[in-house]
Amino acid sequence: MGTTKIDAPAGVPFIDISREFDAPRELLYRAYTEPELVKQWLGPRKYEMVIDRWEPRDGGTWRYVHRDDDGNAYGFHGVFHGPQSVDGMLQTFEFEGAPGHVSLDSLKFEEQDGRTVIRTHSVYQSLEARDAMVASGMGEGVNEGFIRLDDLIARLLAKEPAGVGSAT
Amino acid sequence: MGTTKIDAPAGVPFIDISREFDAPRELLYRAYTEPELVKQWLGPRKYEMVIDRWEPRDGGTWRYVHRDDDGNAYGFHGVFHGPQSVDGMLQTFEFEGAPGHVSLDSLKFEEQDGRTVIRTHSVYQSLEARDAMVASGMGEGVNEGFIRLDDLIARLLAKEPAGVGSAT
Repeated sequence: MGTTKIDAPAGVPFIDISREFDAPRELLYRAYTEPELVKQWLGPRKYEMVIDRWEPRDGGTWRYVHRDDDGNAYGFHGVFHGPQSVDGMLQTFEFEGAPGHVSLDSLKFEEQDGRTVIRTHSVYQSLEARDAMVASGMGEGVNEGFIRLDDLIARLLAKEPAGVGSAT
Repeated sequence: MGTTKIDAPAGVPFIDISREFDAPRELLYRAYTEPELVKQWLGPRKYEMVIDRWEPRDGGTWRYVHRDDDGNAYGFHGVFHGPQSVDGMLQTFEFEGAPGHVSLDSLKFEEQDGRTVIRTHSVYQSLEARDAMVASGMGEGVNEGFIRLDDLIARLLAKEPAGVGSAT
């Protein structure tokens, strides 16, 4: 199981995250682009995950809602910039609880010897918005989501060990 | 005629631009969203401006090409995030001559007494990318574009003095 590294460097409005997974990048790309897979891992376990739309293509939009047992709902949405592929993804991100604060999030899949490091680089419109995102406890949610992603790829690899990596 | 202020603050990857125009914000919003108007002002005069697409709505994409007399072509593209309105616009921006470097650009129209200040705030994925944009001479192009925008709104106001501001 990999270790999630989250870096919020002083003085610049960035958040950088890296995490290694025991899977080829094609499988991780599927987990990030197929909504039936995305809903199985993105975010903490305690939320019900409802994906309104998930269109990983230039100009495609995405939106999902996390609901907890107390009836609270947390919506998120954004758009994809440019072609999305195993070579990288790029999207905007807005938490609907803090409307008007938008980040630009890039993602890379770096595969070596069958394992893949995911690296995200998020840029915020102000240092204050970046700091608020860090203070929101996002790190815990990201880490728990990645543990769920470990489980998802293990299930997918167990189901179709020969098929993975042949599709592009 | 207004003065274009361009600020690239030290240590953070931002470019902030402000410029006052002698027009209500509804007219400026039209100049930013109607492609037949956009092509009349955006960028330096020396380029032929060809707009491939200009879709100011959530998930809409935009692309244009500047061509000079020597046959050089400079393409730019991006996507719009969220609803676009006189209350603000938000889009990604990529110069195709430096692929992979994308900024997130917000725009506000601040009207007072019939005049409108346009403020843009652009965030880059690195300080180096921001500095490269400044070094590219973008300031001169921005300023010349705004002078052309002065001319455009003067033409529009002369043509339809009573109609401006009534449409939303």
